[in-house]
Amino acid sequence: MNLRTPGPTPIPPSVAQALAQPMINHRGPEFEALFAEVVANLQRVFQTQHEVLVLTASGTGGLEAAVVNLFSPGDRVLAVSIGNFGDRFTKIAEVYGTDVQRLRFPNGHAADPGAIAERLRADPAIKGVLVTHNETSTGVTNDLEAITRAVHEAGAPLLVVDGISSVGSLDVRPDEWGIDVLIAGSQKGWMVPPGITMLAVGPRAWEAHRHARLPRYYFDFTAAHKSAQKHQTPWTPAVSLLYAFREALRLMLAEGLPALFERHRRLGAYTRAGLRELGLRLVPVDERYASNTVTAFWLPERCSADAVQERLRAEYGVVLAEGQGELQGKILRIGHMGYVSEADIDAVLQALRQVLATQAATRA
Amino acid sequence: MNLRTPGPTPIPPSVAQALAQPMINHRGPEFEALFAEVVANLQRVFQTQHEVLVLTASGTGGLEAAVVNLFSPGDRVLAVSIGNFGDRFTKIAEVYGTDVQRLRFPNGHAADPGAIAERLRADPAIKGVLVTHNETSTGVTNDLEAITRAVHEAGAPLLVVDGISSVGSLDVRPDEWGIDVLIAGSQKGWMVPPGITMLAVGPRAWEAHRHARLPRYYFDFTAAHKSAQKHQTPWTPAVSLLYAFREALRLMLAEGLPALFERHRRLGAYTRAGLRELGLRLVPVDERYASNTVTAFWLPERCSADAVQERLRAEYGVVLAEGQGELQGKILRIGHMGYVSEADIDAVLQALRQVLATQAATRA
Repeated sequence: MNLRTPGPTPIPPSVAQALAQPMINHRGPEFEALFAEVVANLQRVFQTQHEVLVLTASGTGGLEAAVVNLFSPGDRVLAVSIGNFGDRFTKIAEVYGTDVQRLRFPNGHAADPGAIAERLRADPAIKGVLVTHNETSTGVTNDLEAITRAVHEAGAPLLVVDGISSVGSLDVRPDEWGIDVLIAGSQKGWMVPPGITMLAVGPRAWEAHRHARLPRYYFDFTAAHKSAQKHQTPWTPAVSLLYAFREALRLMLAEGLPALFERHRRLGAYTRAGLRELGLRLVPVDERYASNTVTAFWLPERCSADAVQERLRAEYGVVLAEGQGELQGKILRIGHMGYVSEADIDAVLQALRQVLATQAATRA
Repeated sequence: MNLRTPGPTPIPPSVAQALAQPMINHRGPEFEALFAEVVANLQRVFQTQHEVLVLTASGTGGLEAAVVNLFSPGDRVLAVSIGNFGDRFTKIAEVYGTDVQRLRFPNGHAADPGAIAERLRADPAIKGVLVTHNETSTGVTNDLEAITRAVHEAGAPLLVVDGISSVGSLDVRPDEWGIDVLIAGSQKGWMVPPGITMLAVGPRAWEAHRHARLPRYYFDFTAAHKSAQKHQTPWTPAVSLLYAFREALRLMLAEGLPALFERHRRLGAYTRAGLRELGLRLVPVDERYASNTVTAFWLPERCSADAVQERLRAEYGVVLAEGQGELQGKILRIGHMGYVSEADIDAVLQALRQVLATQAATRA
């Protein structure tokens, strides 16, 4: 199968092998060496000097962890969303009883840093901003550097960034840009199966955490931090996924971050050019904000996304992701992060050409 | 290494191989078939007709999920603890703002069903009881059937059972005994690496869930239930651990539940007899409540637990677990659940005999 969903992503052979290593005592010296290496190398790829916490959960658990560790009931939070995953982040903050102010941009559009700054200036009570770096549901990448500048110039509330489908693939600089919490997920460009979420937590976030009163136990930053001093985790971690991480991080650092970021930039452009050649329209309305980790495109009118997705899978072994929310049935999404090369994209484009040429106009 | 910690436990070769299978789309047909088989076979081993939810988290996450999905702020809860893991369950309920009434029995003792019933009769406002089936920190197994009877006769509040180190190894009957939520963890007798927690949720728990107002998102039962209707999970699950689960459950069902429970009973008795022969004293004060999944024993006076643990590991490749809380440095614990036979226990006992014979009196 040519798995081209934007997570889970394919696992290189040596990472798959690493998964199968024997279990160890998570309170013993072998584990401590494993965990210390993983955390140190995560810091390198995150491009941060700050602590990176490693939690056993999906990325959604990482988003929840950020909210419950930074805020108290009633704290005003500006939730910036440009799609389904931004909406999820918004919902989490609402469920936990913060006072959420929504700033939603239409699907396909990037967030406007000026509009964010305007909302912050108009309401100095806002304590935190939640924002998605790369919106996996629409294939749009926000200009995160510009957003961080805007936020810092407009009162500098806490900046919490969902980097689940960007960190490890795109060039994100939490320390340089001033991101307080940056959240990532193992099943994206990291080439590791799902089940681990990683959070880079800066000094302003630790300070806010000291006063944050939202309830938390499993996801508590202090518990994770205390155990990390001994290269351990407070609760039994997903040991086999950490084996995979150790190997995958070695591969990423062997490639080198500049080469890794450049490969993703190249593959993003390559995928978009190929789709354009097939006459397909991208979901991002402005290609400057088109994502280099996931590309979303509209199916031709009267052409069923479900039927195309199923034929690609059954006839060509090409697995794409469907649309979410109001985009379901209208778009498909191609993941190109992690263990991927031009040849994988060529196979997608060829299969898509065949299927679209022979696909009857069948959209339900 | 002879890994004899009470979780993580060793993984059979075919389960290790299963971990290394290629990633798949967690919204596609291959995943749906995988998930459907795992859930159906989990129900068999849980001996329940009720829904079994599968969450990506450690067992501690499962305990938290049970609390936040059943209760509202201020709900009175009786937390029965016989050790460190019971204390953790208590703490979770407190952190989330329920009105926790503690009932703590001393380390080494089982909970007294009569005392539980007395507390419930004295306080009809108690809405739920939290209890540990098998206390991993002391190697004591509560008489869960007697406790369920006592709870049902004394007003029948919701009964929430931490079965993390029992379900899959010991004979637990949630439907027959009337357990509302029963929580398990993949890294115990299931022979799967850590990272998955499973919860059998009965009809009274679903009814309570409808009115429960504690905040939750990642662990929300309704979200898990809705996705499970499509054989999916609401958030990206730990796919490789589910591959492992499919294989491990096939092995467990091939052995058969009666044989599996009998093997654990036999290994528990075998381990205790071997320790007695070495002149060592068990932590459980009454052997009727000694656990058949983990055995805790006192080190001889003036003998350092740390030194014994380290020599066992370095010289004999035998990995035991240390004590927790006030038992740290005084006891060691042997796990005998899942992929384990008499030969593994023989190796532990032989190594222990050698180390104790030559270990100077060094307890710090």
